[in-house]
Amino acid sequence: MTENMIPDDAIKCLDKGFVRLVDSMGGDDAIVQSARVSYGKGTKKVTQDRGLIRYLMRHRHTTPFEMVEFKFHCKMPIFVARQWVRHRTANINEYSMRYSEARDDFYIPEKKDIHFQSKLNKQGRDIEDVPDELKEKVIQYFEEMSQKSFNIYQELNEAGIARELARAIIPVNIYTEWYWKNDLHNTLHFLHLRMDSHAQYEIRVYADAMAEYVKKIAPFAFEAFMDYVVNGMRFTGVERSIFSKNLPKRILDEIYEDVIYQIVATMHHTKSRDQEELYHLYQKNGGKDTQGDFELKWDSGEVEPGNVRELTEFKEKLESL
Amino acid sequence: MTENMIPDDAIKCLDKGFVRLVDSMGGDDAIVQSARVSYGKGTKKVTQDRGLIRYLMRHRHTTPFEMVEFKFHCKMPIFVARQWVRHRTANINEYSMRYSEARDDFYIPEKKDIHFQSKLNKQGRDIEDVPDELKEKVIQYFEEMSQKSFNIYQELNEAGIARELARAIIPVNIYTEWYWKNDLHNTLHFLHLRMDSHAQYEIRVYADAMAEYVKKIAPFAFEAFMDYVVNGMRFTGVERSIFSKNLPKRILDEIYEDVIYQIVATMHHTKSRDQEELYHLYQKNGGKDTQGDFELKWDSGEVEPGNVRELTEFKEKLESL
Amino acid sequence: MTENMIPDDAIKCLDKGFVRLVDSMGGDDAIVQSARVSYGKGTKKVTQDRGLIRYLMRHRHTTPFEMVEFKFHCKMPIFVARQWVRHRTANINEYSMRYSEARDDFYIPEKKDIHFQSKLNKQGRDIEDVPDELKEKVIQYFEEMSQKSFNIYQELNEAGIARELARAIIPVNIYTEWYWKNDLHNTLHFLHLRMDSHAQYEIRVYADAMAEYVKKIAPFAFEAFMDYVVNGMRFTGVERSIFSKNLPKRILDEIYEDVIYQIVATMHHTKSRDQEELYHLYQKNGGKDTQGDFELKWDSGEVEPGNVRELTEFKEKLESL
Amino acid sequence: MTENMIPDDAIKCLDKGFVRLVDSMGGDDAIVQSARVSYGKGTKKVTQDRGLIRYLMRHRHTTPFEMVEFKFHCKMPIFVARQWVRHRTANINEYSMRYSEARDDFYIPEKKDIHFQSKLNKQGRDIEDVPDELKEKVIQYFEEMSQKSFNIYQELNEAGIARELARAIIPVNIYTEWYWKNDLHNTLHFLHLRMDSHAQYEIRVYADAMAEYVKKIAPFAFEAFMDYVVNGMRFTGVERSIFSKNLPKRILDEIYEDVIYQIVATMHHTKSRDQEELYHLYQKNGGKDTQGDFELKWDSGEVEPGNVRELTEFKEKLESL
Repeated sequence: MTENMIPDDAIKCLDKGFVRLVDSMGGDDAIVQSARVSYGKGTKKVTQDRGLIRYLMRHRHTTPFEMVEFKFHCKMPIFVARQWVRHRTANINEYSMRYSEARDDFYIPEKKDIHFQSKLNKQGRDIEDVPDELKEKVIQYFEEMSQKSFNIYQELNEAGIARELARAIIPVNIYTEWYWKNDLHNTLHFLHLRMDSHAQYEIRVYADAMAEYVKKIAPFAFEAFMDYVVNGMRFTGVERSIFSKNLPKRILDEIYEDVIYQIVATMHHTKSRDQEELYHLYQKNGGKDTQGDFELKWDSGEVEPGNVRELTEFKEKLESL
Repeated sequence: MTENMIPDDAIKCLDKGFVRLVDSMGGDDAIVQSARVSYGKGTKKVTQDRGLIRYLMRHRHTTPFEMVEFKFHCKMPIFVARQWVRHRTANINEYSMRYSEARDDFYIPEKKDIHFQSKLNKQGRDIEDVPDELKEKVIQYFEEMSQKSFNIYQELNEAGIARELARAIIPVNIYTEWYWKNDLHNTLHFLHLRMDSHAQYEIRVYADAMAEYVKKIAPFAFEAFMDYVVNGMRFTGVERSIFSKNLPKRILDEIYEDVIYQIVATMHHTKSRDQEELYHLYQKNGGKDTQGDFELKWDSGEVEPGNVRELTEFKEKLESL
Repeated sequence: MTENMIPDDAIKCLDKGFVRLVDSMGGDDAIVQSARVSYGKGTKKVTQDRGLIRYLMRHRHTTPFEMVEFKFHCKMPIFVARQWVRHRTANINEYSMRYSEARDDFYIPEKKDIHFQSKLNKQGRDIEDVPDELKEKVIQYFEEMSQKSFNIYQELNEAGIARELARAIIPVNIYTEWYWKNDLHNTLHFLHLRMDSHAQYEIRVYADAMAEYVKKIAPFAFEAFMDYVVNGMRFTGVERSIFSKNLPKRILDEIYEDVIYQIVATMHHTKSRDQEELYHLYQKNGGKDTQGDFELKWDSGEVEPGNVRELTEFKEKLESL
Repeated sequence: MTENMIPDDAIKCLDKGFVRLVDSMGGDDAIVQSARVSYGKGTKKVTQDRGLIRYLMRHRHTTPFEMVEFKFHCKMPIFVARQWVRHRTANINEYSMRYSEARDDFYIPEKKDIHFQSKLNKQGRDIEDVPDELKEKVIQYFEEMSQKSFNIYQELNEAGIARELARAIIPVNIYTEWYWKNDLHNTLHFLHLRMDSHAQYEIRVYADAMAEYVKKIAPFAFEAFMDYVVNGMRFTGVERSIFSKNLPKRILDEIYEDVIYQIVATMHHTKSRDQEELYHLYQKNGGKDTQGDFELKWDSGEVEPGNVRELTEFKEKLESL
C-alpha cells in the first residue's frame, strides 16, 4: 500500500489510520444454524431467528457467536496496537519493521482530542478545556519529534544500520498496520471493552469503526449485544440488597403488573384475541386486577408490545428482589 | 491409584469421584502484587489489599486474577468430563483408555438425585417427585448396564482385542480422572457457570468442591467473586428502561439519600469525627437534609458501614436510572 | 437432520458418520495476502505465490496460515469426539443430549477394523489377524450393548426421567455431531497428529476426510504441509551426532555436489542459458568440478529441477553435519 | 520499584532490563506425575523419570509439560515487548503508562551490538563490522532522542496533559515491565523461537536469561528440549529423498551396525553380562557380524552407551531412509 492512502472501502480512523473489512464468514444465519445443532431444530422464520439470537445473547450462550468470523485490515499508531494486541484470541499478521522499512506515517492529535489528565480517574482525560496555546504546543511537539526521529531513522537506514535496531528510536505514535481476524463473540468482547467511555479515545475510534461492519454482517446479533450487554446494567450483590431493602413492595407490584400487561399486549400483537381471552391470558400470567379494572386499563391506552420470554424473565428477577 | 479409593486430602464428589488440590501458585497477595505492577504501587495494608481486589473484580480487571494458578486432581464420570473439557484455557492430562485398562468404577445415582425432565426448561430436572419404584428401576438399570458392559470389556480385553476399540462399548457413566490446571480468573469463570442452578447436578458437585479450595487459597478474591459476580444481578437495556419509567423519582431519591448516609457511616467507622464534621461530609456527598434532620436521623439508629468506593459507584448508577 | 442420513456434500466416515465443509474463508491467496502485509509487497505471479507459501511453511511462519478459516459439520462416535475436543483453538457447537433426545446411531466396527492390542506399542493395534469368530463376537457385543442401552434410554425417557441423567447409560460408541470451526494452521496441526499412523483408526478416517477439503481450498499450503511437515524427518541432536561421526566426508561432498547440479538445473529450467553461463553459475554455487567434468556430467543425463531456495537451505544443513 | 534498579535475584539483560523468576509451580516431578495419570503408573526411580521425560519430549507428548508453571518479572524495551506479546498463551500484567507516569529508562545499544543490515537475510544483522564513528553516532542519536522525548513528556505531564496522550511521543526503546506467567511447554516454545540465531539480539538476551531459570526448575525437561528440539535437525520430504538416493546402502548399514553396538553397550552398562550373552543380545537387536568379529570389535574399543529406546527409534529411521 502506498503511504498515506486510505483504501476506498475503509472507514478512516484518526488522521491517517483506517479499518476495513477484508472478508467475513457467516452472519446471523450462521449463529442460528449452529445453535440449532446444539439445541434442536426449532422454527425457521426470520422473527424467530431474531428471537433465538436474542435468547442466546441474554443467556450468555456464547459458542454460536463464535461461528461467525471477521478479517479486518487496520492501520493504527503503535500505542493503540499495544492495547489491541492484548485480545489474545485474534489471529494477527502485522507489518514488520525488521523485514521492511518504516514509513513516514505518524499520528498527530487534533486540537479537539487534546485534554488534561483526569483528576477523578487515574487513567483518562478531563473535560476541562486545555488552552489553545498549550494545544498548539502539543501538536508542534508531536510533529517535531515525529519528523526528527524519522530523519534519523532514514539516515541510519541509508548508512546501512540494521533496520531492527534503527527502528528503536521511533516513537509509538508511528502507524503500523495488520490483518486482524477474530470470531464474532470475541470481536463483541473487544467492542464492549473498547467502545466503552473509559477506553482511550484513540482506540475507541477503531472500535466504533469495526462496530459499523459488525452491525452490517450480523444485525440481530449486534442489536442484541447493544440491548443486553452494552446498555444493560449490572448490580452487585451489595447494591441488590440495598434495592431489596428500599424498594417498597407496592412499587415492585406496580412494575410487575405493568410487565404482565406488556406480556398480554405482546401476545395479542402476535395473534389477535377477544377481551374475554385477553383477561384469561392476563390472569394466567399472574395478573390480579378484576376483569372490570383490567378492561378499563386495557382500553385506556396503548401498552407497548415487547418480547414475551424476556418479559417473563424480568418478572422472575422482580420476584427475586 | 487403587480403584475406588479417595485420597485423604480430597473432597468426595458423587459416589466414587473426588476433587483434590494438588498444587497452587500464589493467592490474594499475587493478585495485589501484579496489579501494582500495572496500576502503580499504592498502599500495603491488608484491608487495602482487600479493597484493591474488590475494585479489580468490580471493574472486570481480569488479568491480575490470571496470576494465580491451581492444579486439581479430579475423578468424574465421562459425561461430566465432556462438559468440563469445554473450558479451553485449562491444561489437562487425562487417564487414557488407549494406554491403560478401564477400571470398574461407574457412577450410580442416588435416589435423591433422580428427577423428572423439567417441563419449563428444555435442559434440567423437575422438582416433582419421582415415585420410589421408578427410582429403584433407574438405579437397577445403571448397575446392570455398568456391570454388563464391564464384563464384556474384560472378556474382549482378555481375548486380546485392542483396548482403544474394546472401551467403545462402555457407557459414559464410567469414571475417568485427570489433572486439571488453570488460573484463578478462568477457574472462577468455570465456577460461575458450573455452580449455577442451571448446571447439571453432577458437575455442580465438582464446582462446589473446587470452590472450597479456591476460597482457602484466595479468600478475598473468592468473596469479591461471590458478591459481585455470583450474587449480582444484571438488567438488560429493556429492563432498565422499564425500571426508569416506573420507579418514582421519590423512591430513587430515598435510596440515594440512604446511600449517602451509608457513605458517611463508613467514613466515620474508619476515622471517627464529630457531628459538625459528619454533617459537612454528608453535604459534600450530595446529602440534602437540613442539619437538624440529619442529626435526628443519625442519632435514631445504626447506619451500616460499607465500602465508600462501591457506594459511590452505586450513586452513579442510581443517577443514570 | 434426520437420523442415519449423510448429507449429499459430505464425505462418509465409518459406518454412520461424516465430515462436510459448511463454509470457509480465504485460501492460498489469503495466506499470500497477509504474508505480504508482514514481509513486504513482493511479486504477484502464481508460481511465486506457491514459492512464498512453501517458504512460509518451511520456516514455520505460522501466522499467515491462521488467516484461512474452515467450518466443518461432523458426525462421529463420542470416543472419537473426546480425542478431537482436545484441540483447544477450535470453536465447537455440539449436539446436546441435555436439550435434545439421544438418537439411535451407534458405531459398529467392520470386521477389517477389529485388531489385537499391539504388543510393541502400549496404544494401538497389532497387525496379526484376529480369528473370524472373535471378530463376529465383537460385532455382536457392540450391537447388543448399543441396542440394549438405547432401549433402556427410551424407556426412561418415556417414563419422564431427566434426559441429562438417562443419557449416562449410553456407551461412547453412540454418534454425536458438531460444527467445528478452526483456522488453517491449527487444522493442519490437527491433521498432522490425527492422520498419523499412531492415531486411532476411527479418528484417522475423519482427519483423512478433512484433508480432502483442505487440499481443495488451499492446495499450495496443503502440498507444502505434506512435503515439509508430514513427509519430513526429524533427527534429534543424538542422531545428528551419530550421523556426523559416521557419514564419510566424501559421501557428503557427493550429495553436496549433486545439490549444486540441481540448483543449476533449476535456474536453467526457469531461464535457459548457454553452457558457459551454466558453468559460471555452477561455480558461483560452490561447484568444484573442472569445466570439462562439468560439461560431461551435464550432458550425460537429466538433472531434476527443484526449488533453488530449498536446495540452498539443504546445502547449509549438509555443511552443518 | 525504584528506577534503574535491578532486583538482587534477577538476571540483568541489556543495559537496564532484567528477568527474574517470581514464582513457579512444579518441576520435572510434576511432568512425571501427570504423565503417569495418562499413561499408567510405571516406575519410580530418578533415572526412569529422566527416561520418561525424554520419551515424552521426543514424541511430542506436550500436555505433561503444561503442568509446570512459571511467573517471571521482566523489564525490557517496548520493541522487545512487542515481539514477546505475540506468544498468546501467556498471562501478562504490564506497567500501564495510562495509569502511571513513564520513567526515564531507555535502551541504549552497546557498540558491540550495532551491526549492518544483513544482505542475505531480510531481517537480521550482518557480521561485517560497522566503523567506530558510525557506532558512536548511533549511540549518540539514541541518547539524544531518548532525552529529548522524555523532556517533552515531562513538560507535557507537568502542564497537566493526559498521560495516555503525552506518552505517544516516546520512542519504542523506552523500558516497560511486566509479570509474565506461562506453562513450561509454551515457555519452551518461546525459548525455541527466541533463543534462535534468527531472533533479534535484544530479545535473545531475555530468552537466554529465562532459559537459566527453566534449567534450574526442570533440568531433565530442559536437557531433553536442548537435545531433541534445539539441537535436532529436520529434513523436509525433498531433502529426505535426496538423502535416500545418495546415501550408499553400505554407509547406512555401517551406521546401523554402529547403533546396534551402542544399544548392546548401553544394556551392558545398565546390567553387566558375559560375552556370550552380549553376542546373543547383539544378534537379537539385528547385528550380523560373526561372533568372532563381534568379540574383536567389542574388545578393540569403547562403545559409548546411550539410551536404548532412542537408539532403537534411530534404527527405524535409518531403515526408512
